[in-house]
Amino acid sequence: MKNPPSLDQLIAALKVLPGVGPKSAQRMAFHLLQKDRAGADKLARALDSALLNLRHCERCNTFSEVPLCNVCADAERQQGLLCVVEMPADLLMLEQSRSYDGLYFVLMGRLSPMDGVGPQDLELEKLLARASDGQVQEVIIATNFTAEGEVTAHLIGEMLKAQGLRVTRIARGMPVGGELEHVDPGTLAQAMYERRNLA
Amino acid sequence: MKNPPSLDQLIAALKVLPGVGPKSAQRMAFHLLQKDRAGADKLARALDSALLNLRHCERCNTFSEVPLCNVCADAERQQGLLCVVEMPADLLMLEQSRSYDGLYFVLMGRLSPMDGVGPQDLELEKLLARASDGQVQEVIIATNFTAEGEVTAHLIGEMLKAQGLRVTRIARGMPVGGELEHVDPGTLAQAMYERRNLA
Ligand SMILES: [Zn+2]
Ligand SMILES: [Zn+2]
Repeated sequence: MKNPPSLDQLIAALKVLPGVGPKSAQRMAFHLLQKDRAGADKLARALDSALLNLRHCERCNTFSEVPLCNVCADAERQQGLLCVVEMPADLLMLEQSRSYDGLYFVLMGRLSPMDGVGPQDLELEKLLARASDGQVQEVIIATNFTAEGEVTAHLIGEMLKAQGLRVTRIARGMPVGGELEHVDPGTLAQAMYERRNLA
Repeated sequence: MKNPPSLDQLIAALKVLPGVGPKSAQRMAFHLLQKDRAGADKLARALDSALLNLRHCERCNTFSEVPLCNVCADAERQQGLLCVVEMPADLLMLEQSRSYDGLYFVLMGRLSPMDGVGPQDLELEKLLARASDGQVQEVIIATNFTAEGEVTAHLIGEMLKAQGLRVTRIARGMPVGGELEHVDPGTLAQAMYERRNLA
């Protein structure tokens, strides 16, 4: 006695999702088949559409349905500034912060030797070509301040400085509204270390 | 600046999966698009196939690709025994235990007032019709020994006893290989309460 093949195949297929093991794949399959067949169909259609329509922006490497994404196609943005982020979500966060009107490069990842992600897995040549186009005056590295993000920032910084480019890193410090009592010691130490003259 | 529509739609569609919130839906979408496009396609195909092919067995209510599932179609099984379980996985576990050669009825759920699952959400009429077919001599209730499974067992037991059927419940007690020191007190109490004469 076994499950019907199409049920076993669905359970197996759901395990391609990160963080989904055999037990939760089974729970998901039962949920979809019993409680949300419309949702299952919507998911199948969304997967098809995403696979069909999404590619990487030729210029900034983020996901896009067109060769040049909205930001890259916007002539109003400062063409001399290039901000390097790890993921599309980081780009969206920076846009929401309304603190930046230059262009982006999205690595689509970060160095992570533990997970087997090395320099060859990031589009470093695409970044190098983009940053060396003659228009870019400053590359702002906005990878995360995690161990992996810092290693990535270091590698990219060295690579781009070797091209004679001006390379900066977004600042570390106290969060807006942050209280000394509640911030972690590492952040507080950085805030002290990177203190600035009052204007 | 927003994500491309097909990316947002995929992230939204992944949230139909139980236990998947906005953050993990985004992580799953990026993973599929970047690292496992073949897996994403496999998942879309598996969803389509499962929606197309899986229905409920006419007799036992489990998932099946044919009107009558393998177990129900097996004339060798004891036709007078009907075991009621919550989910198809429970049926498979019982089959693996090789302790039972009768037939099944799969509730596809359990009573769960907290989650809004009432008697009307279980196929109780289908069970009643099945158990009252004149062939069934004993209904063995094998719902889980959780609060919800016990309430479900009680309801089904009352319903079927009212039809004059013999209704039993699988036994509680010490697990095979279990040590008194390591079993939970409730299980130990039940094992004491349901003690049997040595043969
Ligand atoms: Zn772009
Ligand atoms: Zn059946």
